[in-house]
Amino acid sequence: MDDALAELLAHVVSLPDHEQVCVLDADGRVLAQDVVSALQVPPQDNSAVDGYAVRCADLVAGVALPVSQRLAAGSSGQSLKAMTLARIFTGASIAPDADAVVMQENCTVQDDGAVRVDAPVQLGQNIRLSGEDVTKGAVILSKGERLTPASLGLAASIGMHVLSVVRRPRVALFSTGDELVMPGDVAPQDMPPGAIYNSNRFFLQTLLKRLGCEVTDLGIVPDNCAATIAALRAASQNHDLILTSGGVSVGEEDHIKSAVQALGHLDLWQVAMKPGKPFAYGWVGQGSALAGGDTSEAGAHFIGLPGNPVSSFVTFLLLVRPFLLKLQGGHTFAHQSIAAQANFTRTRADKRREFLRVRRNATGALELFPNQGSGVLTSVVWGDGLVDNPAGQTIKSGDVVRFIPFAEVLS
Amino acid sequence: MDDALAELLAHVVSLPDHEQVCVLDADGRVLAQDVVSALQVPPQDNSAVDGYAVRCADLVAGVALPVSQRLAAGSSGQSLKAMTLARIFTGASIAPDADAVVMQENCTVQDDGAVRVDAPVQLGQNIRLSGEDVTKGAVILSKGERLTPASLGLAASIGMHVLSVVRRPRVALFSTGDELVMPGDVAPQDMPPGAIYNSNRFFLQTLLKRLGCEVTDLGIVPDNCAATIAALRAASQNHDLILTSGGVSVGEEDHIKSAVQALGHLDLWQVAMKPGKPFAYGWVGQGSALAGGDTSEAGAHFIGLPGNPVSSFVTFLLLVRPFLLKLQGGHTFAHQSIAAQANFTRTRADKRREFLRVRRNATGALELFPNQGSGVLTSVVWGDGLVDNPAGQTIKSGDVVRFIPFAEVLS
Repeated sequence: MDDALAELLAHVVSLPDHEQVCVLDADGRVLAQDVVSALQVPPQDNSAVDGYAVRCADLVAGVALPVSQRLAAGSSGQSLKAMTLARIFTGASIAPDADAVVMQENCTVQDDGAVRVDAPVQLGQNIRLSGEDVTKGAVILSKGERLTPASLGLAASIGMHVLSVVRRPRVALFSTGDELVMPGDVAPQDMPPGAIYNSNRFFLQTLLKRLGCEVTDLGIVPDNCAATIAALRAASQNHDLILTSGGVSVGEEDHIKSAVQALGHLDLWQVAMKPGKPFAYGWVGQGSALAGGDTSEAGAHFIGLPGNPVSSFVTFLLLVRPFLLKLQGGHTFAHQSIAAQANFTRTRADKRREFLRVRRNATGALELFPNQGSGVLTSVVWGDGLVDNPAGQTIKSGDVVRFIPFAEVLS
Repeated sequence: MDDALAELLAHVVSLPDHEQVCVLDADGRVLAQDVVSALQVPPQDNSAVDGYAVRCADLVAGVALPVSQRLAAGSSGQSLKAMTLARIFTGASIAPDADAVVMQENCTVQDDGAVRVDAPVQLGQNIRLSGEDVTKGAVILSKGERLTPASLGLAASIGMHVLSVVRRPRVALFSTGDELVMPGDVAPQDMPPGAIYNSNRFFLQTLLKRLGCEVTDLGIVPDNCAATIAALRAASQNHDLILTSGGVSVGEEDHIKSAVQALGHLDLWQVAMKPGKPFAYGWVGQGSALAGGDTSEAGAHFIGLPGNPVSSFVTFLLLVRPFLLKLQGGHTFAHQSIAAQANFTRTRADKRREFLRVRRNATGALELFPNQGSGVLTSVVWGDGLVDNPAGQTIKSGDVVRFIPFAEVLS
């Protein structure tokens, strides 16, 4: 599976088209260029508290000093006169010559308005230095970084209101399978024998949108070669990726493989993972992704996911997500797994690397969903992550295993 | 802080208005009623593999049997004749009287078309039983559950195309502070002394949207009592929550407290956490949230966040997020922290509970951002979570601490 992921990523050249978007609309997008600060944050030394700016050398225990000026946030002050204090509020620039700020809770205001400092004062205390957050000229966010609420705030803090990001990937999505029925088209009580509802479409479209993609949903394509070829050819004209589910197994009812080969080439076929073995990657159309430049004219990447919902879901998170992040120019895309303790036993080792649906209990140990079948979508809804279990490995209760929280890979 | 959170949540009654949304548009929404299945998933016993359906009793080692029918997904078969096999594909319903499926990799097709089974066969093998994922009548998703890509897929798998969810909270957002300038309004080189860009607006609006809120952005309100009262009064007419940042400290430049008290009441004022102490909760308008029914006519909840960006960000995640999830009728809203090892030392204990910005290193241990100042937004962008450190506690390298990954609380 690691080889498959490496091979998959080796075929991706990030999209060359950039666009300017408002900072408020840039959540989840990937930066197309470094963001460099034209100023210091904070711009001036300023107060961390509400209180009094002082000249430390002037303070004598028990002696009150008059207040010579008032410094509110947004105003600019004058030099602090000797033997006086300045009233100051959080965020206000420090008056020149003041060298500490005393919290108002540590001061007493006398009847005559003079203020006595009641606590020891250290040079520089409660002063936030100019540039302690961002220095002028610093790269605060770098090309390839995926924007988050916090990074949008940071970009705003240096005055950015638009950012240059890579354009959204255009993804064509379809399912294959004559047994599939769209929810809403047929009521549960009217479902013919053997028919099942298409569930993959719903989570795949949602996952694609969370990753910033524009999705064209082509619905369900009939299980025959001509229809599959027609759908692939049409989708390859104006999409970066064609994503399918179903039709990539070894049976003769599976037409995706031959259809992709008829129109382009298949580079990956089956991955040693469970669930998820019937995974395919290729190219539909002339040329290949590695020809360079904007390849959207020449064809589209093709990824075929298994039809079983759990297989489809898991391969999306572990293989398609990194692919789409790299396509957008992202510089990190591999998931991070963390060590956690198993609170279950799995005595049968599988020859494939397994991704087990588990849930953290109150102590942080992992519980196993009882039915790990690849058709049991309930396991994914119930779980809050996957155990990444190496091929050939059994697990006993108390073992430390590798855990991939869904929260880390669902957006 | 735990008391503050409990108090805050005690004031929330979930919104009584429900709406029907398409499954494809329901990501992140909270279910207003249980989802009950009208069918079994899978509907019939079916094959987990491509291969041959058999009657186990008929199999004799080395003896090939003729193929009497072909079962593709979506078709329905007839009873399997004695001493024959049925060609079958993944997902296809099992023929009546067949009691196992053999993978095609374990079979040999002879020249005459008869098929020999080359491996031992167990009763029931490779058959997925009807209802193994969902049984008819089961509650597959319950009221108060927040929808995810997987749960949307599960809802689709039982034929749902619309779901009943709680309506989106309407949130009015504004910042106070005469020092604030909107990015885009003034270029960095033209910023007057003491002025800073408003960064809170950007991450707060983005975080609110991630939580499914409709946001009315009222911009920056001037630092005076009349303007603050006018803004609060207007916002209270048609919003569920008024969220502000800044103006809730103790200084006389802070007008939020008195303005809220003039129009309604303040129930919470300052929380023993760092960063985040100047946090406020109250009600603007007549009555209170607990009067029951739709309260949007009578007034709005008020939450005042600190003006410092890190304080604002952290209090949003730890206090506002649970509030908004409960407002939408969510049944889980507290964050989950996990045990992790500190790879840093913090010798000065704080009298408040601290939330330190940290990042996991390659071994899973936590590194501390060097500047934990509440104005240093870089710490949040750099970090991938918070250490929840109890009041009065020092930390030495190797200690096990409580870690809150941002991924768990950012959506």
